[in-house]
Amino acid sequence: MLYTFLGPAGTFTEAALLKVPGAREAERVPSASVPEALDLVRSGGADAAMVPIENSVEGGVTATLDAISTGPELRIVREELVPITFVLVARPGTRLEDVRRVCTHGHAWAQCRRWARENIPSAEYEPASSTAAGALALLEASFRPGDAAICGQIVAEEHPELEVLAAGIGDNPGAVTRFILVSRPGPLPPRTGADKTTVAIPLPQDHPGALMEILEQFASRGVNLSRIESRPTGEYLGHYFFSIDAEGHAQDARVADALAGLHRLSPQTRFLGSYPRADGAEPVVSPHNSDTAFDAGSDWVRSILGD
Amino acid sequence: MLYTFLGPAGTFTEAALLKVPGAREAERVPSASVPEALDLVRSGGADAAMVPIENSVEGGVTATLDAISTGPELRIVREELVPITFVLVARPGTRLEDVRRVCTHGHAWAQCRRWARENIPSAEYEPASSTAAGALALLEASFRPGDAAICGQIVAEEHPELEVLAAGIGDNPGAVTRFILVSRPGPLPPRTGADKTTVAIPLPQDHPGALMEILEQFASRGVNLSRIESRPTGEYLGHYFFSIDAEGHAQDARVADALAGLHRLSPQTRFLGSYPRADGAEPVVSPHNSDTAFDAGSDWVRSILGD
Amino acid sequence: MLYTFLGPAGTFTEAALLKVPGAREAERVPSASVPEALDLVRSGGADAAMVPIENSVEGGVTATLDAISTGPELRIVREELVPITFVLVARPGTRLEDVRRVCTHGHAWAQCRRWARENIPSAEYEPASSTAAGALALLEASFRPGDAAICGQIVAEEHPELEVLAAGIGDNPGAVTRFILVSRPGPLPPRTGADKTTVAIPLPQDHPGALMEILEQFASRGVNLSRIESRPTGEYLGHYFFSIDAEGHAQDARVADALAGLHRLSPQTRFLGSYPRADGAEPVVSPHNSDTAFDAGSDWVRSILGD
Amino acid sequence: MLYTFLGPAGTFTEAALLKVPGAREAERVPSASVPEALDLVRSGGADAAMVPIENSVEGGVTATLDAISTGPELRIVREELVPITFVLVARPGTRLEDVRRVCTHGHAWAQCRRWARENIPSAEYEPASSTAAGALALLEASFRPGDAAICGQIVAEEHPELEVLAAGIGDNPGAVTRFILVSRPGPLPPRTGADKTTVAIPLPQDHPGALMEILEQFASRGVNLSRIESRPTGEYLGHYFFSIDAEGHAQDARVADALAGLHRLSPQTRFLGSYPRADGAEPVVSPHNSDTAFDAGSDWVRSILGD
Repeated sequence: MLYTFLGPAGTFTEAALLKVPGAREAERVPSASVPEALDLVRSGGADAAMVPIENSVEGGVTATLDAISTGPELRIVREELVPITFVLVARPGTRLEDVRRVCTHGHAWAQCRRWARENIPSAEYEPASSTAAGALALLEASFRPGDAAICGQIVAEEHPELEVLAAGIGDNPGAVTRFILVSRPGPLPPRTGADKTTVAIPLPQDHPGALMEILEQFASRGVNLSRIESRPTGEYLGHYFFSIDAEGHAQDARVADALAGLHRLSPQTRFLGSYPRADGAEPVVSPHNSDTAFDAGSDWVRSILGD
Repeated sequence: MLYTFLGPAGTFTEAALLKVPGAREAERVPSASVPEALDLVRSGGADAAMVPIENSVEGGVTATLDAISTGPELRIVREELVPITFVLVARPGTRLEDVRRVCTHGHAWAQCRRWARENIPSAEYEPASSTAAGALALLEASFRPGDAAICGQIVAEEHPELEVLAAGIGDNPGAVTRFILVSRPGPLPPRTGADKTTVAIPLPQDHPGALMEILEQFASRGVNLSRIESRPTGEYLGHYFFSIDAEGHAQDARVADALAGLHRLSPQTRFLGSYPRADGAEPVVSPHNSDTAFDAGSDWVRSILGD
Repeated sequence: MLYTFLGPAGTFTEAALLKVPGAREAERVPSASVPEALDLVRSGGADAAMVPIENSVEGGVTATLDAISTGPELRIVREELVPITFVLVARPGTRLEDVRRVCTHGHAWAQCRRWARENIPSAEYEPASSTAAGALALLEASFRPGDAAICGQIVAEEHPELEVLAAGIGDNPGAVTRFILVSRPGPLPPRTGADKTTVAIPLPQDHPGALMEILEQFASRGVNLSRIESRPTGEYLGHYFFSIDAEGHAQDARVADALAGLHRLSPQTRFLGSYPRADGAEPVVSPHNSDTAFDAGSDWVRSILGD
Repeated sequence: MLYTFLGPAGTFTEAALLKVPGAREAERVPSASVPEALDLVRSGGADAAMVPIENSVEGGVTATLDAISTGPELRIVREELVPITFVLVARPGTRLEDVRRVCTHGHAWAQCRRWARENIPSAEYEPASSTAAGALALLEASFRPGDAAICGQIVAEEHPELEVLAAGIGDNPGAVTRFILVSRPGPLPPRTGADKTTVAIPLPQDHPGALMEILEQFASRGVNLSRIESRPTGEYLGHYFFSIDAEGHAQDARVADALAGLHRLSPQTRFLGSYPRADGAEPVVSPHNSDTAFDAGSDWVRSILGD
């Protein structure tokens, strides 16, 4: 197996990848962006890609939501949840009151802004392409006194030449990021009873009824949603697709039936995978939405039709 | 073929039966009540029964709705619409101003009440078990001067010994009664493109949401309803089943899918037949509820499941 | 107070009227039909009318549903529930095996049919305009040996000259009929916390979505329905109005808001009264449908509008 | 009037502000971030702030959606649409094939990525805090040969010392960004007949039915939605609020009624303003959702209650 992931090495994404059984021993190649990671999988240059999809504070990772929903088809085969803990690092000897500039990724900055305002109010923000890149820049020639970076705990651990000035500086202590492992289409991961199914559904028409009709496909079969995101299709303002995580596996009759309904309403609906939930939570399914009830309904209709 | 019908001979029901190709030459046996007519079919004593199901003025014929929805299964295989035109008949020589009593069936009386109030205000109503029975009683020994009867045009035509005092006396000139031809379960009548499907659906629970969920099974597949009647199950106040006519044939994918959904919600749902509409009106079906769309949806889900 | 009721004296309807405080001492005038009873109230000839509206076996009393929903407005001010117990009566000396004819109202016959088939299989049914009328006819000159009648227990009690051949002969032991007391519009009966509101709603358009939109007016405010009946408007097949009982009083904010919504959807909606439930059952109201929530919502909107 | 806007000067945001009548003559102060711009208005340091809210390619501007929906209340009083046209700029003398690094804001980079891959495939992306900042950095001492920037047309116009290497390089030629003008709560902008209302609605419970109930508040009053975005509340994964633009003004009865319904379902719902649509498009309102219908419904209920 060859894995790629949203690089560079040392970010939360690599931490998520390392939780996959066997990944620690496998070959791991960082990609410069989510689209590049996914394209590497599409082209066969990698077997699977680990990318972030959702953060409890910042929301959906739009680059992932968009890149996975267009282009040649891909499938989510696994999800990982990683708690997000931020540290402020600098070159040894720097004191907190010396910090003048904080170099980090925009998402990380957004999640530590309150802490920064209270603790290093005069520091300026400088954008970096990733938290790891911001931290490693401290070790380069372009370093200026007063430079610091915000990154994840693991970056600091892997670089003892950086000093941790403050730990646990995220404004939201329970922050967690969800990552997905993506591969080319193939057999679905087996049904576990605690699964998720992800779909991308273009709104068939530009009216609120359309969204309700889509939600009804899930609700009328008792399928709960654990995530819903609207994304522009890029064509014009007000034209959306919806990225949705539903509870259950495509092999669950109620989910399969909902998928068929979605396809009728919006034939460009894209199936993005059924895979085990990271939290193992099993849905409550009412008797009339069980596989048994679906089988009984189909049998009954067949008997009517004399098939 | 041996037909039975809600008797006696000479009522609108026999007129409906005579519209069935071949019925005029076939054996026709009147039954004393709708339950008896249906039981005669169930027992094999008749091949089919013609009974009224709905009147544009009086509403559903509850005896039929109840009798067809309980007991061994039966199937509606045909419907007929008969315009209802009432006449006032009496023994020859009777003048309108002589009429003191009008003997007829309660439904007929209800449909001529306004005319009676304006034209024979002093006449009293006497119930009869059918319009034909009321008319024929005029020819019996129990006749009293001042007796008259309200019946259908055809009764008067078949009994020239009765005189028509007034014709077209129904309060609602466009009144029409719908009749159904009922037989034992067998192959469905072929799909014509202008069909109806009749079902009886016990409300799964005693709450308004249940009715909405049932209606949603039709609405979410674009299946229009042409009749909906609530009937008590007889168990306690507020416990209903719904008798529904939907547009389309069980062989239409959208109808078959709605039936499967109804069975899941209310497993005691009873299929009462798919048959051609008497008025030949074809439904408008949106592309995403066509057989093509349903097939495409099923194929898509099968491809996902790797079947 | 002068009361009228669906006569004749001695029927279940009078029994219902006698349960009204003060009615036993008040003047009570039977009417020959439900429309006549209601018209007597409309004209001022009576202060209130007691009429049946619903039977747990036979369903809605269509004459009442139709007569109350058209013509000058009336209001339901009270409801009564009366258990229905049928007896078979005849002239003294008649034995069960002698019975050849059973004279009764069609609704009563329908509710005792199974008993009759098993116990007096050779007896014929003769329709009467009411159960009391059928029983009293036994005392008239037209009596023939073998005549019997089915009527309520109270008729037998008031006429000791009739003999009870069999008691409790209804096929459905728990049968109950619901009666309503109707008067001219006036102040609403005070809210008790366990109330019902009755409305008649013409379907705004001839499509299933219309019924769902109507039900949604109730469901979206958490107002449960305890009765729903479809009735033809008489204009053409498939054109209905719905007669609905909802839980709650028009002075409950959630009911008032639902009424306003119904009026928008179907401006000919008719309010038929708010009145205490006979069974005293109080509805469960979720916090967001309470009067408090409605008041808070209105206050909030007013503050936005700067009123 | 003192305006602030998401700076620095020369971005699309300032272009949007300059479209406001009088803004060209008024004092204009750039803010370093959306939260800072909004806080400046809250504190009274500015009268109004222009910030981006939505881009037809990139989707919602999450910083704006989040900052306006928390903290002391603010109101949107106006919206502007600005077509987004990107140019590639460099120091004079640089040729397209010389470009090694492109410095720009992440959103701009995302919108020109396809062009860049095809035209400057070997160029690396360097993040900047804004498109204008990226362009101006070219004029600083840190400049290295091969540096270029992507920015809006107006930046290039204001800085003739920069050379435009390529114009119209956005991947989506019709890209447009929507900006909003935000001020402290006060009288609503007058109703024009072509208005929008913006709300932020926390999902009352964590289930799909909750979202449907919210959408139903709009749909059941015929209020269309022109934008819907889900945003995490930051508390835990799967906990959302919805940012919604609805067609109509809070002074429209149907909108006011929907707002009251939203408040009942989700009392923390925040009203963010009613204001004229930039495109002037008027909604189609069915008769039963008109102000007249709402007034008639209220009057009818009042007459029932005897008020």
